[in-house]
Amino acid sequence: MKSDSEKKANRQSVPVAVLGATGYAGVELLRILARHPRVDLTAITSQQYAGKRVSEIYPSLAGKCDLTLEELAPEKIAGRAELIFAALPHETSADAVAALLDKKKRVVDLSADFRLHDPKDYDRWYKGHKAPHLLTQAVYGLTELHRNAVAKARLVANPGCYPTGAILGLAPLYSQKLARGTVLVDAKSGTTGAGRSATVDLSFSEVNENFKAYNVGVHRHTPEIEQELGELARERVPVLFAPHLVPMNRGILSTIYVELKKPPEEGEFKKLYEQFYRGEPFIRLLAPGQFPQAKDVRGSNDCAIGYRYDARTNRLVVVTVLDNLVKGAAGQAVQNMNVMCGWPEDEGLRELALVP
Amino acid sequence: MKSDSEKKANRQSVPVAVLGATGYAGVELLRILARHPRVDLTAITSQQYAGKRVSEIYPSLAGKCDLTLEELAPEKIAGRAELIFAALPHETSADAVAALLDKKKRVVDLSADFRLHDPKDYDRWYKGHKAPHLLTQAVYGLTELHRNAVAKARLVANPGCYPTGAILGLAPLYSQKLARGTVLVDAKSGTTGAGRSATVDLSFSEVNENFKAYNVGVHRHTPEIEQELGELARERVPVLFAPHLVPMNRGILSTIYVELKKPPEEGEFKKLYEQFYRGEPFIRLLAPGQFPQAKDVRGSNDCAIGYRYDARTNRLVVVTVLDNLVKGAAGQAVQNMNVMCGWPEDEGLRELALVP
Amino acid sequence: MKSDSEKKANRQSVPVAVLGATGYAGVELLRILARHPRVDLTAITSQQYAGKRVSEIYPSLAGKCDLTLEELAPEKIAGRAELIFAALPHETSADAVAALLDKKKRVVDLSADFRLHDPKDYDRWYKGHKAPHLLTQAVYGLTELHRNAVAKARLVANPGCYPTGAILGLAPLYSQKLARGTVLVDAKSGTTGAGRSATVDLSFSEVNENFKAYNVGVHRHTPEIEQELGELARERVPVLFAPHLVPMNRGILSTIYVELKKPPEEGEFKKLYEQFYRGEPFIRLLAPGQFPQAKDVRGSNDCAIGYRYDARTNRLVVVTVLDNLVKGAAGQAVQNMNVMCGWPEDEGLRELALVP
Amino acid sequence: MKSDSEKKANRQSVPVAVLGATGYAGVELLRILARHPRVDLTAITSQQYAGKRVSEIYPSLAGKCDLTLEELAPEKIAGRAELIFAALPHETSADAVAALLDKKKRVVDLSADFRLHDPKDYDRWYKGHKAPHLLTQAVYGLTELHRNAVAKARLVANPGCYPTGAILGLAPLYSQKLARGTVLVDAKSGTTGAGRSATVDLSFSEVNENFKAYNVGVHRHTPEIEQELGELARERVPVLFAPHLVPMNRGILSTIYVELKKPPEEGEFKKLYEQFYRGEPFIRLLAPGQFPQAKDVRGSNDCAIGYRYDARTNRLVVVTVLDNLVKGAAGQAVQNMNVMCGWPEDEGLRELALVP
Repeated sequence: MKSDSEKKANRQSVPVAVLGATGYAGVELLRILARHPRVDLTAITSQQYAGKRVSEIYPSLAGKCDLTLEELAPEKIAGRAELIFAALPHETSADAVAALLDKKKRVVDLSADFRLHDPKDYDRWYKGHKAPHLLTQAVYGLTELHRNAVAKARLVANPGCYPTGAILGLAPLYSQKLARGTVLVDAKSGTTGAGRSATVDLSFSEVNENFKAYNVGVHRHTPEIEQELGELARERVPVLFAPHLVPMNRGILSTIYVELKKPPEEGEFKKLYEQFYRGEPFIRLLAPGQFPQAKDVRGSNDCAIGYRYDARTNRLVVVTVLDNLVKGAAGQAVQNMNVMCGWPEDEGLRELALVP
Repeated sequence: MKSDSEKKANRQSVPVAVLGATGYAGVELLRILARHPRVDLTAITSQQYAGKRVSEIYPSLAGKCDLTLEELAPEKIAGRAELIFAALPHETSADAVAALLDKKKRVVDLSADFRLHDPKDYDRWYKGHKAPHLLTQAVYGLTELHRNAVAKARLVANPGCYPTGAILGLAPLYSQKLARGTVLVDAKSGTTGAGRSATVDLSFSEVNENFKAYNVGVHRHTPEIEQELGELARERVPVLFAPHLVPMNRGILSTIYVELKKPPEEGEFKKLYEQFYRGEPFIRLLAPGQFPQAKDVRGSNDCAIGYRYDARTNRLVVVTVLDNLVKGAAGQAVQNMNVMCGWPEDEGLRELALVP
Repeated sequence: MKSDSEKKANRQSVPVAVLGATGYAGVELLRILARHPRVDLTAITSQQYAGKRVSEIYPSLAGKCDLTLEELAPEKIAGRAELIFAALPHETSADAVAALLDKKKRVVDLSADFRLHDPKDYDRWYKGHKAPHLLTQAVYGLTELHRNAVAKARLVANPGCYPTGAILGLAPLYSQKLARGTVLVDAKSGTTGAGRSATVDLSFSEVNENFKAYNVGVHRHTPEIEQELGELARERVPVLFAPHLVPMNRGILSTIYVELKKPPEEGEFKKLYEQFYRGEPFIRLLAPGQFPQAKDVRGSNDCAIGYRYDARTNRLVVVTVLDNLVKGAAGQAVQNMNVMCGWPEDEGLRELALVP
Repeated sequence: MKSDSEKKANRQSVPVAVLGATGYAGVELLRILARHPRVDLTAITSQQYAGKRVSEIYPSLAGKCDLTLEELAPEKIAGRAELIFAALPHETSADAVAALLDKKKRVVDLSADFRLHDPKDYDRWYKGHKAPHLLTQAVYGLTELHRNAVAKARLVANPGCYPTGAILGLAPLYSQKLARGTVLVDAKSGTTGAGRSATVDLSFSEVNENFKAYNVGVHRHTPEIEQELGELARERVPVLFAPHLVPMNRGILSTIYVELKKPPEEGEFKKLYEQFYRGEPFIRLLAPGQFPQAKDVRGSNDCAIGYRYDARTNRLVVVTVLDNLVKGAAGQAVQNMNVMCGWPEDEGLRELALVP
């Protein structure tokens, strides 16, 4: 990396590792961390490619991040990093995280293993949890909602890509208990959300010129959304979540339908959203009646939010967009690290969206 | 056309014209009609390209349909065709249609001008109607719902692409009045639905790697859906319709959310949908819990319908797919012509979807 | 199939089987054969999906082709089909073909196993041939060049997708020995040319917003092109073949650069190409200086050819397009069957391109 | 911009303007310059959108660059900027550039107006030049070839996107006169290379699932390539340039075919390319026989170069990739500015490619 010397001169630099560095969230972490001025990337792991340079797998990293991939050995990693990003598969991350916490390391876990507070929820939507004793110390890392807890956390459970868009779009409403009944989240994601996988279903010939719904009503991100909205509203919030696959690489657009308890007053939502998100570096609010597009945030850590009140049906329609690999994964993880380390929250995350 | 001689030998062949033949619906009509064994294509019009052969504009037609495009002169067309497809812009079609009906011709109009029975609805969503006296004789050409009326009609108002998918997915439910409250139609369309247009917004660089919502709650297809569902249910049905643009050429997938009056009995919907659509040549029902994908019907006149009951929220989620240029426009228009002429309903429409 | 009764009434119908029916070439054969008026599809095989209905794998076939997939057992197939399409992988097709020929069946083989006349060429570009004794009776099935031999053949080796576009674009030139030196074929293919594969390299996230060259100078289709051009020119023709992957499903565009022995006379190429391809049902010649686009032939069996003489460099640039799954595979195979059976050459192949 | 205060504290910051800021090259300049630590963006112009904030046109800029677009008035701009990027259309840029140079400003011109040294070449490929007297002081801004001249230049003619990829791939060869005869450049570009245009030909429905060649042998970038290779080789170099349009937004891959004077010695090209490009911050050389892909450089200022010697035909095949909006336009322009100002050449250009 060009800036290695600069970094070494920087007294505040922290040794950081990335577990699962060749998945799409992992390599996006590398893309961001390679340019982060307070981070020294010291170790990266990959079960599949251990022994190879990561830039052999991702030529775009050549000359910028040429570290050699290692096998996952938490003890060895713990000796060389203070903060570790775990971008491992769901249901397998818990063991590694537990070992790292034992060694007094701080962890941002990008899997789903520590997002749900109630182990019964985990059992219902995933499989038996391997480290339920850690659930109490895990902080749900939607930074905008839990900034103070993140700052002190040793274990941050980075939110899912879909829940990030859904919760950020709805948090102001539920904090004021303005909605009633089931909230419908019709979400549309690019293909990188499904990870780097060798399956016919995700091959270009099958996805291109196609559009599909999947896991309607049964997707594992449902309980995350219900948990966070429920906490805000201090009551159970039923969510019907319907994800779809868009023939594009990056981006999630969520169209959210909420029935209101009563019609809003003039300017009510504008005031509500602006107050709720005042000073947030990554939230971009649109004027009422305007909606964001997926490309507006491509490659950036922004979440853009638009809404429109439909008087004919007394529904508020909220549309949010984010880049599933940035605000929906790696960018939010770095945002959490910045908060954990007391750095400027947007350090390393100031790049503009890549448009067009 | 190869089969010209065959056709001339066919006593039942009918002279047919296409107005607005170089728009995407128009050229799709040519693609289908050029192979329809009972049709003689005698005249095609285009304001923009009058005087040119259509195969200069669409090289794919070379050798198959080389007619010269004419200016739109309804009287001259009336002398050479018995049945006319009008694929003209909304709000300009009415004049041409009126002139053709005066000449005792039968017309399938692909514009929105004759779809709404109540001229006040037209005024509210479009602009002042130019031939309101014809509204009473126009039949809404969703063949599956109005087959008998279509057979006798002189003027068929071919449905919009979005309403076709929404209404076909919901008709069985509303015919039995099983739903309550607002129905949410979250629809996703390929770009040909926006027509053949020279705008920055529809340029490849803007649409590719992007996804957006547009006209949420205010799209002109809303009243069509409300009209037809309302007729089926014999009561007002409020529809919140939210269209989106997908980076693909063809296809509409509609995800539809309905609150039920009461939880269904085992197998209730399967029985309901199978009875409602028994014998329909173009409706393809999926097993409960399965959803169709846009590509399943690309290039064909099929509409595939899947549904899943979500007990957690007492919602039925219905997903329908169709090719917006075929069942959503030209194919349905030909289906209507077949019914009007007493031919097999799938004549000229038996091609399989182009997959992958 | 709707037309089953029609077909049974048709005295000329022939029982046909497809081996390897769930690969992309296989399912494209089903798409075409399901509508072919002289074919009874009696057996289809798939190693991966034996025992399932093919319409479970490809929902687009539901109601049109619902046959159950069988394991590959040539003897059993031979009892139920007179003509068999083998769409099996290279290097494994030879055994099945040999068994079918033993049973006196006629075969159109879509693999590369019988395309090269000289077994040494096969050994050099593939691996040791399993049935070299059959090479002498195999006819290279580029119908436009070998129509008479195809008509009498028991074994037709259907050409590769790339060679079809390259050879058709160059055949007139080499038949007159107008070119000199190395011919450069820079070809660009959609992703279905790589088959239905579960690999990361062909996943949407890797192919979309990307473009790459592969196997430059070492692609296995090189010797096919050299063989056919060499036969036409009656001398060795060195070919440098460079394939590329385009983020689209269907289509091959080949840009071909030829150095001429001498500058052409006015209109020379127009006359040459028109004479060479006079009466060909699937060759579409463009005016000199005009080039075809991939979409012009999507879904059709056409090959469109354009050329431009560049006086500055004394090169002829020829551009050809075809649909790799139709004229590049299944469509050409059906064209060969039609010739073998003495049917109209375009039977079942008259559909127009799906545009846009 | 977040970093405004930082910038003001920076004594070296230079006031910079962008003319034509809403075209794709213009907005890409804004994306880069908004984060460049030594630049104060003081004025941006747009004929079409004068009076609006640029972030209304490009929402991705909201909060990062909210300047108001002005009409193009060179005198007024000259009062507020020391260095000006002109991203204006070909044939209209010359007037503005002349006015700015009169005011003693330094200009990086992204149009073609000052790229060709010989005004006769300009007349042949464009239209009559409006400021031929400035041609002698313009430096062709391919930084890797003309770094010293760029450093001192008042007017830098930023290269075309296609020539950048072609020349960088060939410069080592021609500097050593290893090639003979015509060089063939078969280039494939994403759609943003055609600019932000409202034309049917560039609409999504026409470009998607399509691939085409255009302006083969007559594209205006031909003389740029011939000029630079000719200078390197000190003799006329005939170039046959054939551009193609790929359904992707960003990226150019050029496949280049060169006949060699004699077969190379073992490792000859590796040594040659490595020496020629030693220390270059933006050139990435691949191992012999390996080729780069378009995505490897998406969003970055890199140009990656691969090559393979084909002994069968004695051709060297060179493949280069770059992002047409970065190294092919805005990035190279900033690289030139950095050199002109004596700053680190990669200042503001260190971001990694956005992959996947």
